[in-house]
Amino acid sequence: MHQDHYQDRIRHPGLLGKVMSAAEAASLFHSGMRVGMSGFTRAGDAKALPRALAERSQQEPLELTLITGASLGNGSDGLMAQAGALARRMPFQVDPILRGKINRGEVLFIDQHLSETAEQLRSGNLPGIDIAVIEAAAITASGAIIPTMSVGNSVAFAQQAERVIVEINLSTPLALEGLHDIYTPQPLPGREPIPLTRVDQRLGGTAIAIDPARIAAIVITDSPDSPSNALPPDAETQAIAGHVIAFLEGEVKAGRMGPQLLPLQAGIGTIANAVLHGLIGSPFHDMTMYSEVLQDSAIELLDSGQLSFASASSITLSEKVHQKLMDNIDHYRSKIVLRPQEISNHPEIVRRLGIIALNTALEFDIYGNVNSTHVCGTHMMNGIGGSGDFARNGQLSLFVSKSAAKGGRISSVVPMVSHVDHTEHDVDVLVTEFGYADLRGLAPRERAPLIIERCAHPDYREQLRAYYAKAAARGGHTPHVLQEALAWHVRYQETQSMCDA
Amino acid sequence: MHQDHYQDRIRHPGLLGKVMSAAEAASLFHSGMRVGMSGFTRAGDAKALPRALAERSQQEPLELTLITGASLGNGSDGLMAQAGALARRMPFQVDPILRGKINRGEVLFIDQHLSETAEQLRSGNLPGIDIAVIEAAAITASGAIIPTMSVGNSVAFAQQAERVIVEINLSTPLALEGLHDIYTPQPLPGREPIPLTRVDQRLGGTAIAIDPARIAAIVITDSPDSPSNALPPDAETQAIAGHVIAFLEGEVKAGRMGPQLLPLQAGIGTIANAVLHGLIGSPFHDMTMYSEVLQDSAIELLDSGQLSFASASSITLSEKVHQKLMDNIDHYRSKIVLRPQEISNHPEIVRRLGIIALNTALEFDIYGNVNSTHVCGTHMMNGIGGSGDFARNGQLSLFVSKSAAKGGRISSVVPMVSHVDHTEHDVDVLVTEFGYADLRGLAPRERAPLIIERCAHPDYREQLRAYYAKAAARGGHTPHVLQEALAWHVRYQETQSMCDA
Repeated sequence: MHQDHYQDRIRHPGLLGKVMSAAEAASLFHSGMRVGMSGFTRAGDAKALPRALAERSQQEPLELTLITGASLGNGSDGLMAQAGALARRMPFQVDPILRGKINRGEVLFIDQHLSETAEQLRSGNLPGIDIAVIEAAAITASGAIIPTMSVGNSVAFAQQAERVIVEINLSTPLALEGLHDIYTPQPLPGREPIPLTRVDQRLGGTAIAIDPARIAAIVITDSPDSPSNALPPDAETQAIAGHVIAFLEGEVKAGRMGPQLLPLQAGIGTIANAVLHGLIGSPFHDMTMYSEVLQDSAIELLDSGQLSFASASSITLSEKVHQKLMDNIDHYRSKIVLRPQEISNHPEIVRRLGIIALNTALEFDIYGNVNSTHVCGTHMMNGIGGSGDFARNGQLSLFVSKSAAKGGRISSVVPMVSHVDHTEHDVDVLVTEFGYADLRGLAPRERAPLIIERCAHPDYREQLRAYYAKAAARGGHTPHVLQEALAWHVRYQETQSMCDA
Repeated sequence: MHQDHYQDRIRHPGLLGKVMSAAEAASLFHSGMRVGMSGFTRAGDAKALPRALAERSQQEPLELTLITGASLGNGSDGLMAQAGALARRMPFQVDPILRGKINRGEVLFIDQHLSETAEQLRSGNLPGIDIAVIEAAAITASGAIIPTMSVGNSVAFAQQAERVIVEINLSTPLALEGLHDIYTPQPLPGREPIPLTRVDQRLGGTAIAIDPARIAAIVITDSPDSPSNALPPDAETQAIAGHVIAFLEGEVKAGRMGPQLLPLQAGIGTIANAVLHGLIGSPFHDMTMYSEVLQDSAIELLDSGQLSFASASSITLSEKVHQKLMDNIDHYRSKIVLRPQEISNHPEIVRRLGIIALNTALEFDIYGNVNSTHVCGTHMMNGIGGSGDFARNGQLSLFVSKSAAKGGRISSVVPMVSHVDHTEHDVDVLVTEFGYADLRGLAPRERAPLIIERCAHPDYREQLRAYYAKAAARGGHTPHVLQEALAWHVRYQETQSMCDA
C-alpha cells in the first residue's frame, strides 16, 4: 500500500483514514450509477478504479453511465466495456473494444461538444453524478484535490458528485502543483463574463476545493499515463504542414495578423501534431496556444522559443517528451497552464481570443462540409471532441486530412459527406497534402472546383469533376445528384474501393 | 424632395447639402463594388437606393456584392437581382426572384451565421465595403446615424465603408431615437469581455457615430417597411405551441429554471411567431427575450405583461401591430432595445445568458440532425440565419416543424436529412404538432424511436420504423442504409410524394 510514500501527498490529516484498496473503493459502486472520471486524451485518468470496476463487473454487470473529460488511457475503456461495466458513455472515447460495442449498439455513446458536458451537468440538462473518481498528485491540507496531467471535467465532477474517490498517483511529481488554473463559470441566471483575456492569465486557484467529508475513498497508484500514440510526421503530413504555413504566411503578409499569429488550437492526433511540428523553424514567433490538448509538438515549440505560452486542458506526450517535461517541470510550469475543458473550449473565450482552429477531418465534401467521426456515415471512430467548440466560434477554422486512405481506395474528398459534424458555415480552409482551399467568402459553386483542384487526390479528381458537372447542370444552390451523392460510400462498402474505374 | 419635412432630421448643418435624389446617389456606384445595406428581416432596409440601383443596372449590369443584415423588404432583392445588379449576396435572403437566380447559379449566395459577418469584415476575412447604404430616422448634430426598425450590420458597414449613403425615412417617428444600443466589439488581439449580463442592459450610444465627411449622399424617402408575412396561428402551430409550453413547464417543475424561464430567442416566421403567441396566458411570467427579431407575438407578450423586456436586432410586424408600436413608441422604448446583430447573436452573450433557442426546421432526421435551408438537399430556401448562433451556444435548443408538408406528400421527419445545418450535437428538443422528443443525454439509437413515435406524422411512422429497423440491424453508432438514406427525397423528386405506398 506504499504507506511510506503517500503521507506527504495527503496533507489533510482527517483523510489518511480513507486510504483503501481499489477493490474496496469499487465496492462503493452500484449498478446503474452515474460516474464522472478524470482523464482527457489519455492524460490524468484514474488507473486503478477502472480495473477494479471491470473486475467487479465480471460477477455482476455494473452498467454504469461513465462520463469523462475525453478519452482514457491504459485500455481502461476497453476493460470496463468488455466486463459489462459500461451501459452509457460520454462525451468522447478512442478505445477499439469500446468502439466495437458502441457500433454494435451494446454501449450507448453520447457524442458531445467538449465544452458542454460540465455546463449541462450544472444546469440539470444531464442528471447528476453519483461518484467522481479523480486522479490527483496530492490532497491539500484543506482537502482540495491537485490534478495531474489533465483537468478535463474533474472540477465539475468533484463539485457535483455525492461522493468523491481520489486516486493519488505517486508517479506524478509534486511539483505539478501550480500547473492548473481551477475556475468554474457561475451558475445561471445572471452570471458575469469569464474574465479571461490573455492565454497566460489565471482566474482561480491551483486545486479543486471540495468539502473533504465528501471524499469517500483514497486509492494509491503509481502507474504513468499511457504515452501518446501519435505517429511521427511523414511526407504527407509534412506537406500538409507546409500548406498550413503557407496559408498563415499569406495572412501575415495581408496584414490580417502579426507574425505572432492568433492563439492556436490544434486537435489531437498525428496530423495536427505534425502540422504544429512543422511550425518549428517557420517565420512565426511569440506564438501562443489556447487549445484543449498539448502534444509533443507544443513542448518542442516552447523549446524552440517560438511559442511563448500554451494553455490547454491536458498534456499527452510520448514517453521521451514526457520525461523531459517531468525533469524540467519547474521550467515548463511558467509556460503552461491546464484549465477545465469548459474553459479551454469555452465559446466566449474562443470567440474573444480569435482562435485559429486546426482540426482533423475524416472526410470532407466538395462544398466544405466535414465528417470528423463516422466511417461510411454509420460507424463511430472517436467522437467530435472539441472541434466544434473551436471551429464554430474561432476566428479561422482549418480542417486537415490526407487526401486518401486505405492505400488510395478511399478518397477523403467526396461528393457528399456521409455524416456531417461541421457544416460549410464553419469551415474556412481545407488542407490536404496537395494544397489548401481558402473558402472564405465563397459560394458553394465556387467552393467545389477549388476543393477538387486544390485538395483532392489526382486519382479522384476526374471522378469528382464529373459528379459536380452533372450536379451543377441539375441546378440548386448546393448542387447534388441525390441518387449518386452517397454512391462512393456504397461502392466502398461493396467493392472495398471508392474508385469507379 | 420633401424639403420642408427633413430639416429637423438632418441636424448636422454641413450635411444638408448632401441631399440628392436616389438616382443621383446611385451614380456613385460602379460595377463590382461591395455594398453594405441596412435591413434585417424586412425591417429598416433602404427603400430608394435598391430601386435606383436596379434601374441603373438595366442599362449597365452593376454586378455588386451586396451584404445586408438579413432579408430586405419591398421586393428590393428581386428587383436588383432581376436587373443584374447583384453578382454576390450574403448573408441571408428570402426573395423568390433572387432565390431562383441563386438556385440557377446566376447569383452567388454566401449563407452565413448572422453573428459572423461583421466580425469577418472587421478581421479582413471578408474584403472591405465600398459603399454603405443605411436607413435612418435622423442624423444627429455630430453626424451620427439614428437607425430605424433594425440595426443589423449597419454599424459595421457605416464604420468600415469608404462612403456612406443615408436614407432618411420620413415615415419613421423621431421618437425611435433611444431605441437602439450601438456597441462594437473591440478588434483583435487583446479584447475585453463584452460587458452585457442582462437583456435590458445598454452598452453604447443611441446612434452610429461616424466621421460626417464620409457621408457622400443623403436620400429622402417616406415608405414604411414591408409588413410581416407571418401567417396567423392555425391548429397545427397551436398544437406545436402547446407541446413547447408543456416541455417548458416540465423544466420549471423539475427546478431547472424559474417561471420566468431563461431569455427566449425565437426565429423568424409563422411557426416561431405562433409558439410565442401561445405563451400568452401560459403560467410563465416576468419573461425576457434575447432574440434577433421581434414579431407580433413579442409585442403581444409585452402587452400581456408576461414579457418584461425584449432585446433584438430588428422588429418585423404586421401593419396593425406596427401601427400600435408607432402610436405608443415612448411606452415600448422602455421595454425594447435593438442591437447590432453581432451582439444580439453573439456566442459569448448567448452562452452567458443561457438562451432558450427556438428555431424552425425544414426537415429533421431520426437522429436529430436538422436541415433549415435546402429543399431536397440542393435548392436554397432562405438561409441559416441566426439559428446556428443560438442553437450551438444556447442553454436549450428547440427546433419546431409541422410533421408534413405539401398536403402530406413530404414528411418533415426523414431517415437522413438531405442537407445538414444543425448537427445532432446542437439539437436538444424536436417538436411537431404531434408532440416533442426530448433528446438530452440520449444516444442515436435511443433518439430514433423517440423521434419517430413522438414527432413523425402517423402516415410515415411505419415507413420510418422499417428504415430504422433495417439500418439498426446493419450496425453502427448512427445506423443507416446508405443506399436508401436519401431515397425518400429521390422518391419525392420522381413521384411528388415521399410515401412508399
